[in-house]
Amino acid sequence: AMAAAAAEVSNKRVVLKRHVTGFPTEDDMELVPATARLAVPPGSAAVVLKNLYLSCDPYMRSRMSRHDEPSYVPDFVQGEVLTALGVSKVVESGHQDYKPGDLVWGMTGCEEYTLITNLESHFKINHPELPLSYYTGVLGMPGFTAYAGFFEVAKPKKGDYVFVSAASGAVGQLVGQLAKITGCYVVGSAGSDEKVNLLKTKFGFDNAFNYKKEQDLTATLKRYFPEGIDIYFENVGGAMLDAVLLNMRLHGRVAVCGMISQYNLEQPEGVRNLFCIVAKRIRMEGFMVTEYYGNYRKFEEEMAGYLKEGKITYVEDVAEGIESYPTALIGLFYGRNTGKQLVAVARD
Amino acid sequence: AMAAAAAEVSNKRVVLKRHVTGFPTEDDMELVPATARLAVPPGSAAVVLKNLYLSCDPYMRSRMSRHDEPSYVPDFVQGEVLTALGVSKVVESGHQDYKPGDLVWGMTGCEEYTLITNLESHFKINHPELPLSYYTGVLGMPGFTAYAGFFEVAKPKKGDYVFVSAASGAVGQLVGQLAKITGCYVVGSAGSDEKVNLLKTKFGFDNAFNYKKEQDLTATLKRYFPEGIDIYFENVGGAMLDAVLLNMRLHGRVAVCGMISQYNLEQPEGVRNLFCIVAKRIRMEGFMVTEYYGNYRKFEEEMAGYLKEGKITYVEDVAEGIESYPTALIGLFYGRNTGKQLVAVARD
Ligand SMILES: NC(=O)c1ccc[n+]([C@@H]2O[C@H](COP(=O)([O-])OP(=O)(O)OC[C@H]3O[C@@H](n4cnc5c(N)ncnc54)[C@H](OP(=O)(O)O)[C@@H]3O)[C@@H](O)[C@H]2O)c1
Ligand SMILES: NC(=O)c1ccc[n+]([C@@H]2O[C@H](COP(=O)([O-])OP(=O)(O)OC[C@H]3O[C@@H](n4cnc5c(N)ncnc54)[C@H](OP(=O)(O)O)[C@@H]3O)[C@@H](O)[C@H]2O)c1
Repeated sequence: AMAAAAAEVSNKRVVLKRHVTGFPTEDDMELVPATARLAVPPGSAAVVLKNLYLSCDPYMRSRMSRHDEPSYVPDFVQGEVLTALGVSKVVESGHQDYKPGDLVWGMTGCEEYTLITNLESHFKINHPELPLSYYTGVLGMPGFTAYAGFFEVAKPKKGDYVFVSAASGAVGQLVGQLAKITGCYVVGSAGSDEKVNLLKTKFGFDNAFNYKKEQDLTATLKRYFPEGIDIYFENVGGAMLDAVLLNMRLHGRVAVCGMISQYNLEQPEGVRNLFCIVAKRIRMEGFMVTEYYGNYRKFEEEMAGYLKEGKITYVEDVAEGIESYPTALIGLFYGRNTGKQLVAVARD
Repeated sequence: AMAAAAAEVSNKRVVLKRHVTGFPTEDDMELVPATARLAVPPGSAAVVLKNLYLSCDPYMRSRMSRHDEPSYVPDFVQGEVLTALGVSKVVESGHQDYKPGDLVWGMTGCEEYTLITNLESHFKINHPELPLSYYTGVLGMPGFTAYAGFFEVAKPKKGDYVFVSAASGAVGQLVGQLAKITGCYVVGSAGSDEKVNLLKTKFGFDNAFNYKKEQDLTATLKRYFPEGIDIYFENVGGAMLDAVLLNMRLHGRVAVCGMISQYNLEQPEGVRNLFCIVAKRIRMEGFMVTEYYGNYRKFEEEMAGYLKEGKITYVEDVAEGIESYPTALIGLFYGRNTGKQLVAVARD
C-alpha cells in the first residue's frame, strides 16, 4: 500500500555516455532527466537517500576508463549513473537502524535521489553541528586519507622536513596542517599563485611554490629543502617524483597517495631516479584510505576537535546543482578547484 | 730498528687510470708493479695485511665515476689503488688485538699487501674451518645482504611468492635458498641457460627463467606467478622492475637491493608502472647492508650453521691472481660471473 502511494520526484542524474581515453570531457557524461520513487521495496532493508553534497574525486578518473583487466576500482558502466561519495539524508527507510532525517556519508549515485539496498559501507554523521559538506572532505574520505597517509604511512617525527604536492587540494591542505601540528617543517607545491598564497597564509605551510612556474624542479626543491626531504606526501607522480627522489634525505619516506599527473596519460611517464631508493634507503609505500576505515571514528573525533578549536581550517570549492557535476569533476584534472571540490545538490 | 730491517716485497696493485663513463673497460684500470714494506710505523696501531681473496662487487662501479655531488659511496681517486672487500691475513701488527696470522675480512686495497691504519671496520674470521673465500661471499657482505634484505626488509611469511632477479649471483643465490628455508615459493631470473639450470638444480628454486630470451617480461612473470608476487628481491631495476610492478600482489614488498642494469647508463631508464604502488599498496624499500653490521655475528653463526648442515650451498667464480682483477670486475656488468665473483690473490 505504501509503495502505491509513494511520491515520484524529479531525479536528474549524471550518466557515463562513453568510456574515456585521455582527459575526460563533458561529452563523456550526460545529464539525464529521470524520476525517482520515494519508497523502498516492501520487506527490504533498503533506504532512499536524498543526496545533499556530492564529492568530486580524482580516483573516479580510473573508473571512467574501460579496463581489460580489473583495475583497483571497478569501471563505471556505459549508460549507467556514475557513483560518487556523498553526504545524504535518509528519506525512506526499510532498515531498522535508519529513519528518515538521518544523515550519512558514503557511496551514492551522482543524482538527486538514490535507492541503496545495502547501507553497510555508509557512516552515520556524528557531528551535524559542523558544515555537512565537510563529510565529503575534511571529515570524510579525503580528510581520513591525509590523516592515515601522514600518520600511519609516512610516520612523521617532530622536526621532519615534509613536502606535499597538490598541497592546496582536498587532501594536501590537511597534510600540511597535520604536519605543522606534529612539529614538522612543511612546504607545499600547487598550480597557481593564488593557491600558493593560500598555503602560506591560510594553511600555515612554512613555504610553498607554484610548480608551473619552475623550470628545474630538482633545483627548486633544493632551494626549499637545503637539508633535504624526510617525508614526501605524493599526490602527483611523474616529474615531481623524479625531482623529489634526488632531494630525499637518508631514510626518507614517500607516502604514495596518488599520482594525478598520470591519470589521463595513455602511457605513464618514466621515473628515472629510483636508484635513490637504495642509495638513501628510502621507503616508498602506497596506501588506500579504505583499508583504514576501521579507525574512522577515532579520526572523526580528533578532526572534529581540531576544527572546533580552530587548529585546522578547511577550504572547499562548492559548485551548485547536479548539473555542474561533470564540469566540476573534469576541473580536478586542470587544477580548476581551489580546495576540496564538491557539488551542492540540495542544502537539506 | 724493526722498520729498518723490514722486508720489502713485490706488491702489484690495481690503480684507477681514469674515471669511467658508460661500461668500464680494462683501459680504465692499470696493473702497477710496486713494492710494500712489511712493517708498521713504530708506535702506531696499524697492521699490514696480506690480501688472500679480493671481492668484485657491483657497487664499485659507482666509485669508478667522478661525481659532482658526493655519491652514496666515495669516488675512487684517479691514479690511486682501488679498494675492495677482501679476506686478509695479518702479517705485521702494531695493534694489541691483532697478531700475525690472524684472519680478517673488510675493506682493503686491490693489491697484494695493504697497510691499514685503522682496523675498526674489519671483522675477525670466526669460522676458518669453512673456505676462507666464503668471507667475500656467503659469510661476508653479499651473504649478509641477502639475509638482512630478505628477513629485515622484505619480511617474508611462509607461503609467500618470491621473485629474485640476478638470482644466480653472489646475493641472489642465497635469497632463493633463504626463501626456501622460510617456506616460500621462489622463482629466479638469470642471464643464461646454464645459470637457470643452476638455480633449479643446485639452489632449489621452484622455477627459473633466462630473462634474455623473453620478449615480454610482464607476460613471462604472469606465467611464473599466476597468483602474483608477494616479494620482489630487486637486484637489477629498469624493465624488470616495470614488469614486476604489474605482477605484484596486494601488499607486496619490493626489497630494493640494487639496480645493476642501470649502473652503466648515462641516463637511467624510466620506470612507468609506479602507480601500482598505490593500487596494490606496495611497500618498496631500499637498504644498505652496512646499516645492519651490528648484527653481523648473529648472521655469521646462523649461516655457518646452514653451510655445515648442507642446508645452504654456495657457488663461487674464482679468478686467479691480482692481474685478473680488472677483467673479473668488469665481467659483473656482462654477467660473465657464475655465482660470487672473487679473485684469489694468494692462498695463504
Ligand atoms: N590513496 C588513497 O586512498 C587516496 C584517497 C584520496 C585521494 N587520493 C589521491 O590524492 C591526490 C589528491 O586528491 P584530492 O582529492 O586531494 O584532489 P585535489 O588535490 O583536491 O584536486 C586535484 C588537484 O591535483 C592537481 N593536479 C591536477 N593535474 C595535475 C598535474 N598534471 N600535475 C600536478 N598536479 C595536478 C590540481 O592542483 P594544482 O592546481 O596544484 O595543479 C588539482 O586541483 C590524488 O592523486 C588522488 O588520487 C588517494
Ligand atoms: N644494498 C646493498 O647493501 C647491496 C649489497 C650488495 C649487493 N647489492 C646489489 O645486489 C645486486 C647483486 O649483487 P651481487 O654482488 O650479487 O652481484 P652478482 O649478481 O653476483 O653479479 C652481477 C650480476 O648481475 C647481472 N646483470 C648484469 N647486468 C645486468 C643487466 N643489464 N640486466 C640484468 N642483470 C644484469 C648478471 O647476471 P645475469 O647473467 O643474470 O644477467 C651479473 O652476473 C647488485 O645490484 C648490487 O649492487 C646491494
